[in-house]
Amino acid sequence: MNIEDIPKNHPRYQSLVTREKLVDFFNKGIVVAHGLVAQGRGEAFDYILGEKSHDFALDAEKVTVAYLLLSQSPIISVNGNYAALAGEEIVELSNSLNVPIEVNLFHRSEERIKKIENYLKDIGAKNIMGSECNKVKLPNLEGPRGIVCENGIYKSDFVLLAIEDGDRTQALRNLGKTVSAIDLNPFSRTAQAASITIVDEAIRATKNMIEFSKELSQLSRCELLKITSMYDNKSILSKAFNQMFVNLKNAYEKGIIFNL
Amino acid sequence: MNIEDIPKNHPRYQSLVTREKLVDFFNKGIVVAHGLVAQGRGEAFDYILGEKSHDFALDAEKVTVAYLLLSQSPIISVNGNYAALAGEEIVELSNSLNVPIEVNLFHRSEERIKKIENYLKDIGAKNIMGSECNKVKLPNLEGPRGIVCENGIYKSDFVLLAIEDGDRTQALRNLGKTVSAIDLNPFSRTAQAASITIVDEAIRATKNMIEFSKELSQLSRCELLKITSMYDNKSILSKAFNQMFVNLKNAYEKGIIFNL
Repeated sequence: MNIEDIPKNHPRYQSLVTREKLVDFFNKGIVVAHGLVAQGRGEAFDYILGEKSHDFALDAEKVTVAYLLLSQSPIISVNGNYAALAGEEIVELSNSLNVPIEVNLFHRSEERIKKIENYLKDIGAKNIMGSECNKVKLPNLEGPRGIVCENGIYKSDFVLLAIEDGDRTQALRNLGKTVSAIDLNPFSRTAQAASITIVDEAIRATKNMIEFSKELSQLSRCELLKITSMYDNKSILSKAFNQMFVNLKNAYEKGIIFNL
Repeated sequence: MNIEDIPKNHPRYQSLVTREKLVDFFNKGIVVAHGLVAQGRGEAFDYILGEKSHDFALDAEKVTVAYLLLSQSPIISVNGNYAALAGEEIVELSNSLNVPIEVNLFHRSEERIKKIENYLKDIGAKNIMGSECNKVKLPNLEGPRGIVCENGIYKSDFVLLAIEDGDRTQALRNLGKTVSAIDLNPFSRTAQAASITIVDEAIRATKNMIEFSKELSQLSRCELLKITSMYDNKSILSKAFNQMFVNLKNAYEKGIIFNL
């Protein structure tokens, strides 16, 4: 199906458009086969969550922007799925806050890193690395999935990542970094290991962060610190779980038919 | 990742093996990109359900076998994902009960039908159609997704299908056919439209049906009719929903970390 063929009045128009977008980027070699499976898992959780940005997501997004503004060396770690889903939003966020992007892949291939880097540069990314940096390995992560840029993720004190492998998120946390993770599954190891868990769809999450960055870049350091100090990720995860129960129960009781 | 590289003691070994199997069949042209996304949705629901065959699934599987034995013209409708996941099990079920297979695709291509047919023949399918039958169109289903074999799905009184599109399931029901659907999402339109909903993973479901067929083929017609007459799909769906709530609640309360 082409994106143009999806009827605009389809009740799940946005989700179907996003799915086709991923398949397009798969055909371009930016997303891998496993990324399509991951997208399916995300679709299921987003559907259960009602395909909207709840308060628990907005709170985590706001705190993430505060950290992006406060941190000494923040970075946005971008993989194939995140680039394919929210490339333009990532570039806008990165450029407006002057936070660098590192293209970093679990299913690592230098060719794909170059492709994603070029794609993001084409749509305006100004501060981006991945293919030509000095590479170092994260401790406790075997194989190519441990490789990062020395002046990127390695030296960072704050990492924003999305749809990431649990081992990698944990490895970054073990190095003492603050990690904010966009992940629709609040039970995933990434969601559980992150310092800040954004239980939201990647496009919506990044759009919301762009909005928050306009507001928060007007605040003083002290006011930003107030926002980060009040944040409690356990309570955010609880609210996300609770929303899943409530939505499933409502759908069941009202006889709403899911349409995945 | 290759299947051999997945550590056997990984808590989610079976699910990871299944995922790699799907990606392999994708590379062979049997599964399409959208099939990988569908697999991801299934993984999410199976995870919430605890990745096991619950009583509500076993009941639906048993009744399905009773129908396969009782019906005048039963058929097993097989698409790319079902063939890739459970090809060997489908062939064993089909051969042992002498129920034909029709290869029938939502994302229809004659080449892919031929590929799936050849794959299933290679692993022993004796009674199979799809590419060279007399083709007719189901009413109310536009485009190539409405095409079926006249002496297969069209004339059947009972259809077993898996991971199917909601419109197609509904179209078969509208023709008065009894439809049993393997679908991990009890909220899906297919799950809701089916006469019998098997909320279970396709490999486990088909293996269970092979076991039931050994037991049920010993029974009289009257005993089989007793099994089918006592079946209540609404109660089966209720039990599946309930299991989802219970598992989410337990996982949350026990702090079990999901590992998708």
